[in-house]
Amino acid sequence: MTAKGSATRQRIVEAAAAHIREHGVAATRLDDVGLRSRTGKSQLFHYFPGGKEDLLVAVAEYEAQRVLDDQQPYLGALDTWEAWHAWRDAVVDRYRQQGEHCPLGVLLTEVGRQSPASREITRGLLREWQEQLRRGVAGMQAGGAIRPAIDADRAAAAGVAGIQGGVVILMATGDITHLESALDLFLDHLHGRPQP
Amino acid sequence: MTAKGSATRQRIVEAAAAHIREHGVAATRLDDVGLRSRTGKSQLFHYFPGGKEDLLVAVAEYEAQRVLDDQQPYLGALDTWEAWHAWRDAVVDRYRQQGEHCPLGVLLTEVGRQSPASREITRGLLREWQEQLRRGVAGMQAGGAIRPAIDADRAAAAGVAGIQGGVVILMATGDITHLESALDLFLDHLHGRPQP
Repeated sequence: MTAKGSATRQRIVEAAAAHIREHGVAATRLDDVGLRSRTGKSQLFHYFPGGKEDLLVAVAEYEAQRVLDDQQPYLGALDTWEAWHAWRDAVVDRYRQQGEHCPLGVLLTEVGRQSPASREITRGLLREWQEQLRRGVAGMQAGGAIRPAIDADRAAAAGVAGIQGGVVILMATGDITHLESALDLFLDHLHGRPQP
Repeated sequence: MTAKGSATRQRIVEAAAAHIREHGVAATRLDDVGLRSRTGKSQLFHYFPGGKEDLLVAVAEYEAQRVLDDQQPYLGALDTWEAWHAWRDAVVDRYRQQGEHCPLGVLLTEVGRQSPASREITRGLLREWQEQLRRGVAGMQAGGAIRPAIDADRAAAAGVAGIQGGVVILMATGDITHLESALDLFLDHLHGRPQP
């Protein structure tokens, strides 16, 4: 794909993502995406031969990438407690700003469950996210900062679950306390706090 | 309402809930519910004057109550470690059986976000659930089994978030590991395990 082609494709995906965030998948038609991205029908089908279904998969990829990007540079370098706490604050701030229009929410309740292909993207995001947390825990264990008896992979899975649950509750109720509490319990557990 | 009236209303709500679980809210019409519950249109509107919107609120109430009932008798009596672990196993078993058709999933991604009234029901469920966990933690603290420095209310909020996230991941991927890991990390943290 040429640079120009790839920019056009990206413009279409971003327009579709924005429309879905505002109106939901069911209420998003190709015509809406065409209007919003100033793209004609033949161009839409050039980039997405399968139409809406293809486009939804591309939106799922886009939102999944944003979920990870939003947590960088912290998530990729969880090698000190300062980095862990900066990551925690970045996650809370990001979701506080984005509310129910966050990429993760859109993925979980809209585009991520539409087809086997988009479910596979959701699965891939979860794997990658969990793996980056696991690496952080394992690295801290190697440095002696986290108890070796903690199972890094299962702790990482629990961390991802707590964030997802906090975000879903935020979307359903507008209350961010559960997200904060889940992150704090996760970090307290890694820290081994409170001391008995 | 007479006993017979109340049984009819319940039959309608259960039919609507079953149809929504199988087909989603968007694809559920009053006609489907009428057919499934063997109820005529005039009867449907007798019990639910506002039509589909009223019925969705009743389904949200029904599913929210099931979420709590599914965790009993354990959730209401978390006064020993045995009770906590029996509760943990009951939650995992229940969601393993129900998969993506579990009441909590239906509430979070379908009926619980449809209207201000159903969002209020979701909020009420979360409050009640968190309160029962909080009481369990506080009781164990009073008996000396859980460290007093743990904030019972925030721990309960984190526990609820972890379960919700685990269920959402189960719905999106079919994998129950995140739910199990979230519950295990929550219980390990309450236990103060692993020891340093």
